[in-house]
Amino acid sequence: MDKANLFYAQSGGVTSVINASACGVIETARKHKGKIGKIYAGVNGILGALNEDLINTNKETSKTIASLRTTPAGAFGSCRYKLKSYSDNKLEYERLMDVFRAHNIRFFLYNGGGDSQDTANKISQFSLKQGFPVTCIGIPKTVDNDLPITDNCPGFGSVAKYVAVSIKEAGLDVASMCESSTKVFVMEVMGRHAGWIAGAAGLASEQEGDAPHIILFPEISFNREKFLRKVKSCVNNFGYCAIVVSEGVQNKDGSFLSETGDKDAFGHSQLGGVAPFVANMIKDELGYKFHWAVADYLQRSARHIASRTDVDQAYSVGRAAVEFALAGKNAVMPIIIRGAGKKYSWKIGEAKLEDIANVEKMMPRDYITKDGFHITDKAKSYLAPLINGEDYPDYKHGVPQYARLKKVLETKKLKKWNPK
Amino acid sequence: MDKANLFYAQSGGVTSVINASACGVIETARKHKGKIGKIYAGVNGILGALNEDLINTNKETSKTIASLRTTPAGAFGSCRYKLKSYSDNKLEYERLMDVFRAHNIRFFLYNGGGDSQDTANKISQFSLKQGFPVTCIGIPKTVDNDLPITDNCPGFGSVAKYVAVSIKEAGLDVASMCESSTKVFVMEVMGRHAGWIAGAAGLASEQEGDAPHIILFPEISFNREKFLRKVKSCVNNFGYCAIVVSEGVQNKDGSFLSETGDKDAFGHSQLGGVAPFVANMIKDELGYKFHWAVADYLQRSARHIASRTDVDQAYSVGRAAVEFALAGKNAVMPIIIRGAGKKYSWKIGEAKLEDIANVEKMMPRDYITKDGFHITDKAKSYLAPLINGEDYPDYKHGVPQYARLKKVLETKKLKKWNPK
Repeated sequence: MDKANLFYAQSGGVTSVINASACGVIETARKHKGKIGKIYAGVNGILGALNEDLINTNKETSKTIASLRTTPAGAFGSCRYKLKSYSDNKLEYERLMDVFRAHNIRFFLYNGGGDSQDTANKISQFSLKQGFPVTCIGIPKTVDNDLPITDNCPGFGSVAKYVAVSIKEAGLDVASMCESSTKVFVMEVMGRHAGWIAGAAGLASEQEGDAPHIILFPEISFNREKFLRKVKSCVNNFGYCAIVVSEGVQNKDGSFLSETGDKDAFGHSQLGGVAPFVANMIKDELGYKFHWAVADYLQRSARHIASRTDVDQAYSVGRAAVEFALAGKNAVMPIIIRGAGKKYSWKIGEAKLEDIANVEKMMPRDYITKDGFHITDKAKSYLAPLINGEDYPDYKHGVPQYARLKKVLETKKLKKWNPK
Repeated sequence: MDKANLFYAQSGGVTSVINASACGVIETARKHKGKIGKIYAGVNGILGALNEDLINTNKETSKTIASLRTTPAGAFGSCRYKLKSYSDNKLEYERLMDVFRAHNIRFFLYNGGGDSQDTANKISQFSLKQGFPVTCIGIPKTVDNDLPITDNCPGFGSVAKYVAVSIKEAGLDVASMCESSTKVFVMEVMGRHAGWIAGAAGLASEQEGDAPHIILFPEISFNREKFLRKVKSCVNNFGYCAIVVSEGVQNKDGSFLSETGDKDAFGHSQLGGVAPFVANMIKDELGYKFHWAVADYLQRSARHIASRTDVDQAYSVGRAAVEFALAGKNAVMPIIIRGAGKKYSWKIGEAKLEDIANVEKMMPRDYITKDGFHITDKAKSYLAPLINGEDYPDYKHGVPQYARLKKVLETKKLKKWNPK
């Protein structure tokens, strides 16, 4: 019980490579048995700490831990739960410290987006004041690629690859049939605020006329007339029009596209989906036969088509987080630094958590073409390396074999947490 | 010009392996230069014959033809166009014969579903009467797996693999988050009449509690109360509920689920999508937070996750079609015959086109569990081998490299076809 223990937690929307980061954390921590005792993982992220639901990952075989590298989603469970400020919810911070103290947790590794880095930073400060200093290291994760400072976010490259591959394939499908059938295809992708995912679909366009022909970004206000003109011109020029629309596309007044017009009147907003909304708009105005798809969770869990670059980076930030902790660093997060050369290279750097927290990185305007409907060569140069390489999971009987954990819980030492 | 030429056409909705059949046809025909002269492919299927738009595939390199094996959708174009009966549209049949005669086409290979086999059969008969006998061979293709006699259809295994892999991955995503976020996930898949695709998603359930927990089949009338009870019990038992719904699910009165109830009143039917309809029903009745996905064309074009068994079979039926034609067979279609042993095996057999045409094969009732919400072990034994094995395309810069054809058109010899 003398050796310091480590607590790892997954936070927020999961990705197809967040478990690769977990794998990097656990495999690296296991190599330092002299300094790190038990490696705990929270059941459902930070809720696991509050509830004292601590998975003792030391009970998992090294084979199981290795298989996390190819397993999508959050193997230990994640949550949407943001700690308030200390002044607003003192009890929560004190409970965390009670749990950390009871289990001699001196290292806290938090794998999440901007909110989570904010939380990790606050806990670091609070633990010092409490006289039980906990080393807090953030591990970047978000499909949205909207964290600042780091060149890109683990999790993004794989969803980017998924959307590029998917629109390429669906585009070929529509191209085959457009003479006598569907002429317009609309695929909705994630990205409530930033258009990185929608933009990545543009990597499927390798030659003039390739799908997607139109990308709708949250960063560009939707212009109905201009959009419909563009659709018509694509159908005239290429025989069909393949469109990728970000769920976050907005009207000039800042309202989401899918919340407007007839939809409100008829109560459609609950049904949601900007893809059917856009597809029906085209049908109504131009009369083209359409199909639409909403990838939703399929895109962010698609480990079967993960980017090798993304998997490598996700693993590396997990490993680096442990190395940072052991090197005495605190309140920092490993980041990806892109090399300056023409050939893509990257290395791990570090950023302070206080600089990461609560800043969103949007697509720069010069990554989007002048007409607002596609990505520029500059964007392609940035995006292409991030989806490079494949990293296939193992299959058995045609189905990918993903990690199945034992999830042995540590014996509780405290009373049940009652937040009320 | 003395040697007989061959005409190959793709028909109906495309699949991720129909080009593998094209590859089998062309590579095999090229091996018989003494008997087969030019190998034509129709631009947009049978429309290419009517319009005399004949792609001379001899102009494509063997490397390009080989790459068809890993390319999704219809490389030569397909169409939704069914020839009427001879009595209803004499001119069309005569035009086809004019084109076949003008280009000395003695072999017609038609790659499609039941309708197409019906057409091929009629053309075979008509050509005999016209004194210009054309050997007509069908090549099976349909994602729906609803052709009779053949054990399964090329095209199905790959969409089956896609849906099984997708619901497995999305299920893990929801499982990670369900404690504090989404509890119900609904994925809509194809299958207007037969539930084979929806059923295949059941292969993702390897252990108790695995997604999908509920499958809604077109073969089973929807029972709202029973369904909602089942959803609730899944959330209670597993923490979440992953649902796969076939687009063809019907109410007791035979109407499609997505066309009924509030949807009509509010004009939702145009927006379509049975997944959002089902998800909202659950939200309204049980209050669970939900997400939904509509895979649409993504599922049938997903060559990146094709089944190796499916690709092999698609290639083989293409090859067999040429071999049948050269062996003097006519008005037949190669089929897949499953071996009797415990270990899966298959070989090519043959069926008469007249026996294939216009018959739909539904899921047998004993492939669906008693409660109507999942597949039985018998179904799993049938389905599992069809999704077995992976067959990845080549990638460049992270994007799959699919065939790009030159599509050199044969010089026209006839007047423009004017069907009016």
